[in-house]
Amino acid sequence: MAELLQVDFARLRADVEALAAIGRDSEQGIYRMAFSDGDMAGRAWLKQRITDAGLDFHQDGAANLHARFGWDGATPSVMTGSHIDTVPGAGHLDGALGVLCGLEALRSLKEQGVKLKRPLEAVAFSDEEGRFGGMLGSQAMSGALTPESIHGAVDLQGVTLVEAMKAQGLDAMAALDAQRDPASIHAFVELHIEQGPVLDHDHTRIGVVEAITGLQRWEVSLQGQANHAGTTPMPLRRDAMRGLAEFAGEIDRILEEHGGPRSVATIGRVELIPGAANVVPGEARFALEMRDTDPQVLLDLADAFRRTLSVIARRRELMFEFDVVSRIAPVACDPLVIETVSTVAEALGLSLRRMPSGAAHDTQQLARMVPAGMVFVPSKEGRSHSAAEWTAWADIEAGANVLLNTLYRLAS
Amino acid sequence: MAELLQVDFARLRADVEALAAIGRDSEQGIYRMAFSDGDMAGRAWLKQRITDAGLDFHQDGAANLHARFGWDGATPSVMTGSHIDTVPGAGHLDGALGVLCGLEALRSLKEQGVKLKRPLEAVAFSDEEGRFGGMLGSQAMSGALTPESIHGAVDLQGVTLVEAMKAQGLDAMAALDAQRDPASIHAFVELHIEQGPVLDHDHTRIGVVEAITGLQRWEVSLQGQANHAGTTPMPLRRDAMRGLAEFAGEIDRILEEHGGPRSVATIGRVELIPGAANVVPGEARFALEMRDTDPQVLLDLADAFRRTLSVIARRRELMFEFDVVSRIAPVACDPLVIETVSTVAEALGLSLRRMPSGAAHDTQQLARMVPAGMVFVPSKEGRSHSAAEWTAWADIEAGANVLLNTLYRLAS
Repeated sequence: MAELLQVDFARLRADVEALAAIGRDSEQGIYRMAFSDGDMAGRAWLKQRITDAGLDFHQDGAANLHARFGWDGATPSVMTGSHIDTVPGAGHLDGALGVLCGLEALRSLKEQGVKLKRPLEAVAFSDEEGRFGGMLGSQAMSGALTPESIHGAVDLQGVTLVEAMKAQGLDAMAALDAQRDPASIHAFVELHIEQGPVLDHDHTRIGVVEAITGLQRWEVSLQGQANHAGTTPMPLRRDAMRGLAEFAGEIDRILEEHGGPRSVATIGRVELIPGAANVVPGEARFALEMRDTDPQVLLDLADAFRRTLSVIARRRELMFEFDVVSRIAPVACDPLVIETVSTVAEALGLSLRRMPSGAAHDTQQLARMVPAGMVFVPSKEGRSHSAAEWTAWADIEAGANVLLNTLYRLAS
Repeated sequence: MAELLQVDFARLRADVEALAAIGRDSEQGIYRMAFSDGDMAGRAWLKQRITDAGLDFHQDGAANLHARFGWDGATPSVMTGSHIDTVPGAGHLDGALGVLCGLEALRSLKEQGVKLKRPLEAVAFSDEEGRFGGMLGSQAMSGALTPESIHGAVDLQGVTLVEAMKAQGLDAMAALDAQRDPASIHAFVELHIEQGPVLDHDHTRIGVVEAITGLQRWEVSLQGQANHAGTTPMPLRRDAMRGLAEFAGEIDRILEEHGGPRSVATIGRVELIPGAANVVPGEARFALEMRDTDPQVLLDLADAFRRTLSVIARRRELMFEFDVVSRIAPVACDPLVIETVSTVAEALGLSLRRMPSGAAHDTQQLARMVPAGMVFVPSKEGRSHSAAEWTAWADIEAGANVLLNTLYRLAS
């Protein structure tokens, strides 16, 4: 049994609180959207913390910030990382916690004079949250960017990625130079808050991610006929809303019959047309999203949803059409990383759950090129992307120690 | 058996086509919203047609336009009427057809020198369609207006009724003087397009209205919890959309168990909050409307809908609240009017159906004060409130002859 190391928790907590003050609007939460002034202030603070710790600082072409320890430019590194950019009105943990736990792990290992075979890198990836599409920095590292995708990236206000980076003295096209040779990375581990209620609900301290779910997102239109809601008897209606209600009522059955235990499906947006209280809806437009960690299950679900729509539409004399507006393949995490995290958590006496990640993370990009995995800590009531985001400090300490010892073993 | 009279159909058709040209936008339909310039042009044209016909013209305080024949200020009249104001982008028949068939009936009776015991009035009521709330002129006549309701009336652009009438040289407060003594009206009959698909679907020429449906309109909110659609397993969701889907799926059962053969219910508007594809909806706001001709059935339906909402909310851990935003009592039509219309249609060899009116009409106001009823002609595929509104000219001729002979008998 290898030695068990401990982070300096007081220092980690002070870092979390310090970064949480940058870009904060006291009422609404934190605003550090990628390449905003808040994000740049967070980056400047992080660079200072890296150099204060005596770690090597490196900024790559995608403006990913690296803290490096034992870097020799030849030996494949053990990398950890997440992001410090935020959604608007964010909490203090999403992304930031993974970066700061990574920094703390490198600091602790350096201080404790532990002998390692491999260099360590802790990275803050650019624009994970998606001001310009999401996972920009990790896509750059995995080679998923193209000149076209960089030039086409634009935020909701119409500002292009190129403009936003230039305004901060950065060259967006240099992101193409951030691609890493897979051989230069031995393994990747990201610590993140769960952003779901499972660990909190089960009183489990640590989650180890087995796979990151893929998804299909559809825009569906059910079309009947708009009619006067007073003068049209029920049997003569072709009511798009009643078709939607029947379809939505079939979701549980479809998940049971065609899904796995981790399958989820959501109708998160609905528009009825014309949308007046006294008009039978002629059209229902809605967003349907299905997620699973198994590519075949996702295909089976998509097939079952399509057939059910077709049956309901035929019986109710409705037309239907759908566009697949988003399709993201699931990725499996690496067995060695899963095993290392599990062993470490057990050695630390922490309850552990193997689980999927239902949300997207930078790990999704890294897992396509190198052995990768994730450590989850509980999110109070699953809250995230809001100022109400919370993880108990004891759980943060536990997670930081899991990350530290996982990195230590992978680098030994 | 009384004599059967015929309208001058060519003259009626010419009138329908002439009025249809006033306020028309060739692409979108007709725009004669109450007290707009289009409406005023239609009124000027109608006044001219009334005086051209040698009928007496009278404008009351609510700007209702009356054509009168045999008026002596003492004998109770037989009144017909509808409206020439329109919704934006209207067809050529809604309202206008009833006014013009009424005018044609008076012209025909005058020309044919028929001896009548009672005076006749054909009325174009102001703002039936609701720029300022709806049924303004008929409410004025029945005494339903108050100084407060007149001062409070405002259109969607924020223009008050008082301002809009003043801009056309009219005094809104004078509408209070338009109230009629019920003893001054012997009976009221309105001809209108069905605005529903029933007659067209059944190939029936004439509908005689037995009752005008009442309604309750609710604004409902089902509240659960917004969650990440990727990270929240199905059993841990409190998904407002799934609650709405279950409720909407119960509508048919509730109508069967608690409604009558004429009951209808509609969910015509839905909003999910926050309304993003990747967020489990925390709230569903929707409009629920139920209609029936029987006040007790309406109450029973409201009760059943409330109980079903409550059961679904409890089982799904949702909260619910609803506001009754509109409540209109059903009104029965007068047996003598129903009988007269039926006898006339039979004598004319026209197929007839007794039916409810699912839409609101000026008759609803008149029926509260005097014996009143309605004649329906078929609407092609039930289309109305659109430029696609259509009734075959042969059906219009049949309806006009039913109205003429009904008025003749009621006035004899």
